Amino acid sequence: MEPQKRPGGRSARVREAVRQATLAELAEHGYAGLTVENVAERSGVHKTTVYRRWGGIEGLISDALELAGEEPWPIPDTGSIAGDLRGVVQLVRSGFADPELGPVSSAFVAAAVQDPAAAKALHDFFAARHEQSAQVVRRAIERGELPDVVDPSEVIRVAVAPVYYRLFVAHEPVSEHDADRAADAALAAARAGVL
Amino acid sequence: MEPQKRPGGRSARVREAVRQATLAELAEHGYAGLTVENVAERSGVHKTTVYRRWGGIEGLISDALELAGEEPWPIPDTGSIAGDLRGVVQLVRSGFADPELGPVSSAFVAAAVQDPAAAKALHDFFAARHEQSAQVVRRAIERGELPDVVDPSEVIRVAVAPVYYRLFVAHEPVSEHDADRAADAALAAARAGVL
Repeated sequence: MEPQKRPGGRSARVREAVRQATLAELAEHGYAGLTVENVAERSGVHKTTVYRRWGGIEGLISDALELAGEEPWPIPDTGSIAGDLRGVVQLVRSGFADPELGPVSSAFVAAAVQDPAAAKALHDFFAARHEQSAQVVRRAIERGELPDVVDPSEVIRVAVAPVYYRLFVAHEPVSEHDADRAADAALAAARAGVL
Repeated sequence: MEPQKRPGGRSARVREAVRQATLAELAEHGYAGLTVENVAERSGVHKTTVYRRWGGIEGLISDALELAGEEPWPIPDTGSIAGDLRGVVQLVRSGFADPELGPVSSAFVAAAVQDPAAAKALHDFFAARHEQSAQVVRRAIERGELPDVVDPSEVIRVAVAPVYYRLFVAHEPVSEHDADRAADAALAAARAGVL
């Protein structure tokens, strides 16, 4: 993939157009329905250009994920770790329930279980997301709410994992209560010194 | 899908041959490489019979999962909930790490994120698995190790979720320590009255 040479220049505009078209196609047709042809047509960028710069579906997915990872995420700051952690997990739940964002996010997960390049991109995306979200745990340690031996990223993983498990493994609905309970469980484990 | 009319009869033998061929194809080529043609050839069952009885890939996956769900699972019985819960989570971890079983199990997860029929079959599979595994929690309640307000299935979900999250969402490795910690976190939450 060619690096973006001139921010705001033609290269950046092409990248953004292709990225938006990829996201729109994922939202409409999911990962299984994503084709370079459709992305090219939708973005107005020539098919040969898409193949040259992105290589194919895998490159399109990876690039869209890279840009998604750079977007700021509204880390909660409620004043307590209990509220912040619930906030993080509710953000995950509501994101997948969102009629526009949900199908795209689900398509990323589906792409990654099938394609190693997408899996690598999703790995990097989540590493960044864990690092960002871990801020709520680090603040709690500073406030003395949690012992400083706690692993901030692991608290985040354990808090969000039951939501993903229900959605993408057990295929069960996720209620607000389920999300709160997952956050509370991670917090109880952190307080008990397990995480 | 035609119900099995005569256990042990020709219909049952055909079903078993097709199921074994489906599992072998999933192990070798994953969900994306599964075709009715290959399953037919491998099983020695005519392609038209496979289409008539199973409908297609989705039916093959669902049937294989249904049979997988009926297989007994070695529920740990170590005498303590701490040991039992670690045992359950280590079974999940080692299953996916197994060179034969792992690719098949991963193919089921991949199939379900793409195909609604496979998602339904995986949902039922996990409902049965949660119910079986919850036995370790119910025994702990009987022994007085956990309060009787605890939701046994939810303890299992929270215990195994971080393993699945690492494998299929964040695409991170899962160590034995990670698995033990996930089990311990669920137990701490259950003891705290959160689950």
